[in-house]
Amino acid sequence: MDDQEGQPESPTAQGLDPRALAYTVSLPYDHRLYRYDIACSMAHVKMLARQGIVPQEDAEAILLALEEIRRELEEGRFPLREELEDIHLNIEARLYEKVGEKAGHLHTARSRNDLIATDLRLYVRDACQQAVGGIRVLQRALLEQAEAHLDTVMPGYTHLQRAQPVLLAHHLLAYFHMLERDIGRFRDCQRRADCLPLGSGALAGVPYPIDREYLARQLGFSRLSPNSIDAVADRDFIVEFIGAAALCLSHLSRLAEEIVLWASQEFGFLELPAEFATGSSIMPQKRNPDVAELARARAARVAGHLTAMLALLKALPLSYNRDLQDDKPPLFDSVDCLLATLDVMAAMLPRLRFRQERLEEAADDPSLLATDLADYLVRKGVPFRSAYRAVRELVAYARAQGRSLRELSLEEYRRFSDLFDEDALTLDARAAVAARDVPGGTAPARVEEALREARRRLEET
Amino acid sequence: MDDQEGQPESPTAQGLDPRALAYTVSLPYDHRLYRYDIACSMAHVKMLARQGIVPQEDAEAILLALEEIRRELEEGRFPLREELEDIHLNIEARLYEKVGEKAGHLHTARSRNDLIATDLRLYVRDACQQAVGGIRVLQRALLEQAEAHLDTVMPGYTHLQRAQPVLLAHHLLAYFHMLERDIGRFRDCQRRADCLPLGSGALAGVPYPIDREYLARQLGFSRLSPNSIDAVADRDFIVEFIGAAALCLSHLSRLAEEIVLWASQEFGFLELPAEFATGSSIMPQKRNPDVAELARARAARVAGHLTAMLALLKALPLSYNRDLQDDKPPLFDSVDCLLATLDVMAAMLPRLRFRQERLEEAADDPSLLATDLADYLVRKGVPFRSAYRAVRELVAYARAQGRSLRELSLEEYRRFSDLFDEDALTLDARAAVAARDVPGGTAPARVEEALREARRRLEET
Amino acid sequence: MDDQEGQPESPTAQGLDPRALAYTVSLPYDHRLYRYDIACSMAHVKMLARQGIVPQEDAEAILLALEEIRRELEEGRFPLREELEDIHLNIEARLYEKVGEKAGHLHTARSRNDLIATDLRLYVRDACQQAVGGIRVLQRALLEQAEAHLDTVMPGYTHLQRAQPVLLAHHLLAYFHMLERDIGRFRDCQRRADCLPLGSGALAGVPYPIDREYLARQLGFSRLSPNSIDAVADRDFIVEFIGAAALCLSHLSRLAEEIVLWASQEFGFLELPAEFATGSSIMPQKRNPDVAELARARAARVAGHLTAMLALLKALPLSYNRDLQDDKPPLFDSVDCLLATLDVMAAMLPRLRFRQERLEEAADDPSLLATDLADYLVRKGVPFRSAYRAVRELVAYARAQGRSLRELSLEEYRRFSDLFDEDALTLDARAAVAARDVPGGTAPARVEEALREARRRLEET
Amino acid sequence: MDDQEGQPESPTAQGLDPRALAYTVSLPYDHRLYRYDIACSMAHVKMLARQGIVPQEDAEAILLALEEIRRELEEGRFPLREELEDIHLNIEARLYEKVGEKAGHLHTARSRNDLIATDLRLYVRDACQQAVGGIRVLQRALLEQAEAHLDTVMPGYTHLQRAQPVLLAHHLLAYFHMLERDIGRFRDCQRRADCLPLGSGALAGVPYPIDREYLARQLGFSRLSPNSIDAVADRDFIVEFIGAAALCLSHLSRLAEEIVLWASQEFGFLELPAEFATGSSIMPQKRNPDVAELARARAARVAGHLTAMLALLKALPLSYNRDLQDDKPPLFDSVDCLLATLDVMAAMLPRLRFRQERLEEAADDPSLLATDLADYLVRKGVPFRSAYRAVRELVAYARAQGRSLRELSLEEYRRFSDLFDEDALTLDARAAVAARDVPGGTAPARVEEALREARRRLEET
Repeated sequence: MDDQEGQPESPTAQGLDPRALAYTVSLPYDHRLYRYDIACSMAHVKMLARQGIVPQEDAEAILLALEEIRRELEEGRFPLREELEDIHLNIEARLYEKVGEKAGHLHTARSRNDLIATDLRLYVRDACQQAVGGIRVLQRALLEQAEAHLDTVMPGYTHLQRAQPVLLAHHLLAYFHMLERDIGRFRDCQRRADCLPLGSGALAGVPYPIDREYLARQLGFSRLSPNSIDAVADRDFIVEFIGAAALCLSHLSRLAEEIVLWASQEFGFLELPAEFATGSSIMPQKRNPDVAELARARAARVAGHLTAMLALLKALPLSYNRDLQDDKPPLFDSVDCLLATLDVMAAMLPRLRFRQERLEEAADDPSLLATDLADYLVRKGVPFRSAYRAVRELVAYARAQGRSLRELSLEEYRRFSDLFDEDALTLDARAAVAARDVPGGTAPARVEEALREARRRLEET
Repeated sequence: MDDQEGQPESPTAQGLDPRALAYTVSLPYDHRLYRYDIACSMAHVKMLARQGIVPQEDAEAILLALEEIRRELEEGRFPLREELEDIHLNIEARLYEKVGEKAGHLHTARSRNDLIATDLRLYVRDACQQAVGGIRVLQRALLEQAEAHLDTVMPGYTHLQRAQPVLLAHHLLAYFHMLERDIGRFRDCQRRADCLPLGSGALAGVPYPIDREYLARQLGFSRLSPNSIDAVADRDFIVEFIGAAALCLSHLSRLAEEIVLWASQEFGFLELPAEFATGSSIMPQKRNPDVAELARARAARVAGHLTAMLALLKALPLSYNRDLQDDKPPLFDSVDCLLATLDVMAAMLPRLRFRQERLEEAADDPSLLATDLADYLVRKGVPFRSAYRAVRELVAYARAQGRSLRELSLEEYRRFSDLFDEDALTLDARAAVAARDVPGGTAPARVEEALREARRRLEET
Repeated sequence: MDDQEGQPESPTAQGLDPRALAYTVSLPYDHRLYRYDIACSMAHVKMLARQGIVPQEDAEAILLALEEIRRELEEGRFPLREELEDIHLNIEARLYEKVGEKAGHLHTARSRNDLIATDLRLYVRDACQQAVGGIRVLQRALLEQAEAHLDTVMPGYTHLQRAQPVLLAHHLLAYFHMLERDIGRFRDCQRRADCLPLGSGALAGVPYPIDREYLARQLGFSRLSPNSIDAVADRDFIVEFIGAAALCLSHLSRLAEEIVLWASQEFGFLELPAEFATGSSIMPQKRNPDVAELARARAARVAGHLTAMLALLKALPLSYNRDLQDDKPPLFDSVDCLLATLDVMAAMLPRLRFRQERLEEAADDPSLLATDLADYLVRKGVPFRSAYRAVRELVAYARAQGRSLRELSLEEYRRFSDLFDEDALTLDARAAVAARDVPGGTAPARVEEALREARRRLEET
Repeated sequence: MDDQEGQPESPTAQGLDPRALAYTVSLPYDHRLYRYDIACSMAHVKMLARQGIVPQEDAEAILLALEEIRRELEEGRFPLREELEDIHLNIEARLYEKVGEKAGHLHTARSRNDLIATDLRLYVRDACQQAVGGIRVLQRALLEQAEAHLDTVMPGYTHLQRAQPVLLAHHLLAYFHMLERDIGRFRDCQRRADCLPLGSGALAGVPYPIDREYLARQLGFSRLSPNSIDAVADRDFIVEFIGAAALCLSHLSRLAEEIVLWASQEFGFLELPAEFATGSSIMPQKRNPDVAELARARAARVAGHLTAMLALLKALPLSYNRDLQDDKPPLFDSVDCLLATLDVMAAMLPRLRFRQERLEEAADDPSLLATDLADYLVRKGVPFRSAYRAVRELVAYARAQGRSLRELSLEEYRRFSDLFDEDALTLDARAAVAARDVPGGTAPARVEEALREARRRLEET
């Protein structure tokens, strides 16, 4: 027997075929959980001693040793051993090396099933916190660009066709609000993840007088899991996190798409700073928006992780099944993709130079005022749909002649409605923007108010 | 011009190639939104009149006609016309038939973009409500079966291997708690969807003195969308709904999997009632758990819809793009799959007859007590891991002999630890269950408490 | 007994709870398979008679009645009854009404499990055929546009940045080749689907002296399924079809994306014909590329169906499980999305008017010649990477001065390499295109050859 | 300038913000491609020299140095530098260190775009080969178990309900045939990937008299890519590989599911060998089928990768976009998951001990003969559906009495059809198996033939 020789062993993987071990080992990725794992063990051992389940002096020795192990891990001095499967058993084995047989108390009233569930919840709770932090930084960058462009008029688009003039600030704030919803989702996820599984044992609870409330306080949880079977089988919080991450990345992918479009020669709405543009290996003139392109790709990747998690969980009987081990690669990569994308976008955004003259010029396209012409007629008493038809014909007339609306005479306007007067010809983009003076609209006063409100929101946090 | 002949026309699809029209038409599915669409139009017209934007008498004529149109739709008397693309334009065209040119007021200060966003939010808000209602009914069915089986001991499983004895009531409550989290997610979704887009126009707001607060009150929204561009481009609430539905269905798929397993001859834990078992077209003896099998399949289907939505949104530039029209088929099918699965599971569950004798017999497997034997040694002072090793060897010894733990003598037990005494041999499943007397554990008193708490939760709502 | 009263019944769903029936019924979608189902039944009955398993005269009566039933279905006169679950049992019940008890022979030596597997393979075989046909039509449209634009130079893009000049014909042919690979995948799928399951019974084969070879010949299959359990459990061909469809649609989504980009005012590379552009409900000037936008969306939708199928199949034990019924909604919708998108793109493509002057103007951007300048130095003996660096600095110099490469003097060129001569200044887009004279390259001669080859390929089929 | 100091530099990432570099670097995963990358470079340089594009002696120096670099990489002595972005630029920089400025020839007539496309095709070609090899090994293991169990009768299942008796060999062969189709798909993928992109340059071809046919021969490709734009933008072969892998893993997940079921105490059909069963950290008696559980999970993971790839490609304009870099993590992990799962299943399968007595006992369940009883009546002239109904009532009668079919008397049988005779009562599982004597059926002679055919197939390869 291994432990006669003082050799710690894996209680679970001993004698395993090497291919089976290689297939089932999770250490290469789950070592990332070590901080949480040690925190759980320390809380657990304190509780066991407090309840008289293990001797106080054994508990103290274990706590000291766990503290040492944490330092070893932090400093990269810990001898990780894949044959011990996972981070939990690596830590347990190291504890044996340090304190001998009393290390065996650690698994009293505890199973890997409730332990990993607790580690993961601690991890996801932190990841939510970091996501919110990362979003806030990006929101700040958006807000600053928006504040700097309160006066910049640009074409608003639907169907990637110029639609109506808007303020660039208004356009950028659209992303601020998407991200605000993302924060809400991460907080909801965090709140639901804030529930301690420890004490659920393998699946049925434990036959010791443990104090779960104490554990919860030690680990900063505000509730106890109410059902031990559910507690070890539940990975909802991971699906929910990845879902929130996928949606947040879908927002970032939309922003990224616009950066790619706007940096094209055809749009020319912005200039990529050299530090955020990569070259080509063969074309010396290139300034490629690689960061934005990869942000799009990361949205795809995390959507894939969500698929993987839902397919993983589908039709698993209760309670714990080893399939659940494979929650970690998609979760960890989702966290990494999300945080890195938030971070790099927040770094790039302040460096984007919007080319105001190009934006304004594009916004000056008179066809963007067609709706306003219809609204002009409405204000003279025409039902909207009739006004719309008159203007549609006016536009078709101009198009057929290859002329812009601005090049037509009042007489020509009047062929389509005799309600047109001189003032119809002087409509312009700024007037159109100013007219959208409703809550949520693009009129400068409204956007200023929205900027103030956004600023207030950021300062609260 | 069509309308000279009194013929309503599509302002958007006229002159479209028939293949293009067939490809872009959404009426076959979006007619499901008619109630919401009419509600929006009625609120909008009232507001326009109230604000003096359209004449009061025109508004009244429109309101009457919309009321008629609603009745026509409800009674199946409405002549749906695919050449008019969608439900909005069908209603508008019908309105023309009823009130003539003044129907044209309806689109004053409004676009299909903000209209459909509002319709969809109203729809999702209701769908969340229905989902919560459906879950509550299923929770009630679970609770009733759990209450009826507080005394039934069964094997708890990990890895589909018998692990430790638990109460059937405890096992069933695990699903109660999964569903409780689902309710939380639907409510969060509903809360975030509770935000009025109407008044955002095509993307920029509208150039009329509209009263969005009034619209919100009329339609039961508690907030206004704060940014018009975001308001027409945002489909987060759909992704969030489908995400919550996919996760809820993944829970139902786990329950379904267990019903399939338990109804097998090998498990034999339950009997499917004839009304919920289908036959084979060729094997006269079959009683197949088709409902449960299809519940598994629906979880897969809705996971696919979530993929579709995330892929749809990826890298769409702002604001509205026609791609967004394709949010409806996955959304509507997700709602249908979810509600139907909740409904049929709630109908089937009370009819399942658990075969108590089979459950108890399976729980009586003495190997399920191995952990308790280790805990027995722990209570005599052995560190858990050492106790675990002793029992593992005891179990291996019994297995090698082809005998059960119950068939070994005290002497044989003592070969593995001399701390074993007679009382070790009298451990049984009920004692093991009773010993798990911690919050969330399977001890009868804890489960009774959990049942009471669950009952309380249901009665509150 | 129902049939004493001449009432056909469902042998499988009788006595089912109405909610269970509603949940499990597949008639609303599987009626689409009726042609295949009747063809299978006719082949089966002929074979049974031929083998002496059923009396010849009964077989003849059944065949006549099936023929009638087919006509009823085709003419919409068949009374579909949802309480009979699916199309198979509807047809069987109708057969009872027509020929009485001898209808009961139809299920001799056959189960719904092998029947539906056969129906679906026939369906997928045809769908592959239609997909190939649809692709061919679209390829033809691409080829014609390419042939018409052999002389049109445009910027080739990487990272949506102008990279090097190419021929529009060359660009369009890229799609031709993607579609060519799609054809290969549909053919491979068709070939693998070409395998008869009938005769596999419920899962084990049938205890009758049937002639499977005869069945295969009658139904046009070239092989027999070699294992009855696999035959009824296998849905590979559906996954493979949806996979091929998803990939084909991803190609169409790329083409669609380019149509959207090119139709924007900023690119202005093409004009959407009015019959393929939809208007806005509020902006009278809009010509939206809705068809292309929806083509993108359909790619997302079918990717979702692929997810659904893989999640559905994951971890299903053998052999048939009812989960498999849910293969139909994703399959049918994938077929519809694919064929409709191919069709509408093929209709739209010939109507696109490329704006040659805009394309040429964009291609005339001198920075597109930077690689050619480096290649110029290479031809004078400089290693490529050194030449690249020299040109990169030249480009940076021009950019810093706000001048284009064309505006620099030879002296300025020589600051970066003294190997530059007058001829370096006369490089232009057409020369750059002509220089790429390698197999697969954009030089006119190569593209002409590629067009001829493509034409040959289309004419072969 | 860096290279004045002899410092190799990144031509593309220099001056990049550190966060942008960290976000875009691919070295941590793409170094896996080094063998292919060096092979491409060697073939390219040879070709350039042969065509007189670079001096022979420079080419020789480069070839020698590349050979050294390969050895350094293989022996782990290569100094990988993340600031150089990717494996290509790492190799190029190292080449500079070894041969100085003439290293700059390497990028003559070549871009990273066509290089990476070539590397990846070489990689996927090999991965297909390995997949086929891995499948063959697993097929062999299946075949051996099948050959060893030609005599073992077990229940065949539909809906996880016992349906009809089959041979275990027949059941195992079902997997053989699924895997056979997988081989077909990997070969099709390999065939389509067998197409050389090199020579396509950045996107347009290259302006040098290169010999692509020679390159193809050197690298073992049998065709040239026919269009340079498509060649650098195409990732079909990756989607196709991951699709084939996902489907193959879905087969393995079904096998894994059956191993999990059969290893449960309730089924008890097989015993997991200790080397492939893991223990519990808390329950000393456990023998968990972790390998099979993780195989199910890997199927979910790779389905997620497929989603990611399709979402990644959706609506990307031509030609190369940096999004494509993110094809590697899903591809590489799919390859790893697939090969590892094939390998571990092939290792585990021969070690599974089927518990013949349990299988036979389960197969002896008389209700499995119900179909045969109906077929018995059919052979006496009753139409199948009528026979089916008679037997269904017989079964219902027995069930109501709590007796098995075997316990009923001939008189009782005759209550349901007077065509029953003594021989109806002597039907048994072996007779039922033997009766399914059709191609693909479970009769021993047919299964023996199938085994021989499978053996022949394996020996051919």
